[in-house]
Amino acid sequence: MNTYPSKLLENAVNELAKLPGIGKKTALRLALYLLKKEIPEVEAFGSAIIKLRQEIVYCEDCFNISDSRKCSICANPKRENDLVCVVESIRDVMAIENTGQFNGVYHVLGGIISPIEGVGPGDITIHQLLARVHRNGTREIILALPATIEGDTTNYYIYKRLSELNIRVSTIARGISIGDELEYTDEVTLGRSILNRTLYETQLSRK
Amino acid sequence: MNTYPSKLLENAVNELAKLPGIGKKTALRLALYLLKKEIPEVEAFGSAIIKLRQEIVYCEDCFNISDSRKCSICANPKRENDLVCVVESIRDVMAIENTGQFNGVYHVLGGIISPIEGVGPGDITIHQLLARVHRNGTREIILALPATIEGDTTNYYIYKRLSELNIRVSTIARGISIGDELEYTDEVTLGRSILNRTLYETQLSRK
Repeated sequence: MNTYPSKLLENAVNELAKLPGIGKKTALRLALYLLKKEIPEVEAFGSAIIKLRQEIVYCEDCFNISDSRKCSICANPKRENDLVCVVESIRDVMAIENTGQFNGVYHVLGGIISPIEGVGPGDITIHQLLARVHRNGTREIILALPATIEGDTTNYYIYKRLSELNIRVSTIARGISIGDELEYTDEVTLGRSILNRTLYETQLSRK
Repeated sequence: MNTYPSKLLENAVNELAKLPGIGKKTALRLALYLLKKEIPEVEAFGSAIIKLRQEIVYCEDCFNISDSRKCSICANPKRENDLVCVVESIRDVMAIENTGQFNGVYHVLGGIISPIEGVGPGDITIHQLLARVHRNGTREIILALPATIEGDTTNYYIYKRLSELNIRVSTIARGISIGDELEYTDEVTLGRSILNRTLYETQLSRK
């Protein structure tokens, strides 16, 4: 039922309700919230979003979001250029950067191989990754994709494509999370963490 | 920690995170979602919001949101102009309109009296309500404010201010919700619904 007292309000609510996880009721709440703000504030809000979409650039090397043609990570001479961490999305880059444990560079695939969703190797930046490896003489590829069937498929595809080159391919460690109780860990994870056990000595030397 | 790969992204995330109920993580998810949309779509999104704030008008009679100086309800000659339902916010107007049970007009207070939050009678449109009653020869005022202490306070204040005029003041019925079980209804509501019992005959005649 259409009971919006204003066409302008209805438009704004419809646009807000297009966002994932935001229904009509929440959209109305947000629109009425924005109506109570000062005009310059709302203009800043709207234009920040429009500008983001209009002016965003993707790094020509790693496909991370960037303000210029090379992202700040690829452009940083202190990062190890020959150690490439392959991730699904920009959010993964941010998550790994937050750990402060990685000093290489990234490659953002922009998705993972998923036959069900119709995503093949040609739809993501695997080709560009291979070209980059050839061009730059990459030493090691770290596969940091989700621990799902799609992630495993993508891992295997990339591994196969790289196998002719003499290049180290690793995946990030999977096992029980820090702070987790063994009894609540699922069997697959626990099983793998026993198979992939690491020497206690190496852990000590990391501290 | 600031790990946004782009200033544009950071700006957009900060703006989105100002919305109520949206934190930094959700804001990032929304920003990345918008990045995947076509440019015209995102422009439509941003400008719908900016336009809402820039061009919105409040009805000069009832303070409902409107596209012109009189809202569509006040401007409708079929509505009973002398029956005014007093509500806290625009959302309440929409909720009552959705019932299809009311054919009068509204008056949006824009808040309720709340000493704790520093909202006094002068901060909401009570003065304008009284002026309107004088001007239009209103027959009845229906108070449809929240069933809270603040709502009751505001009800009483308006009632007192109207008492010199010969005008009918009613409040919307409070009682157990349709479909509710008696045993799960709180005592205050159940107690009131006994005190404010209605004749079965009147209910039959409404069917």
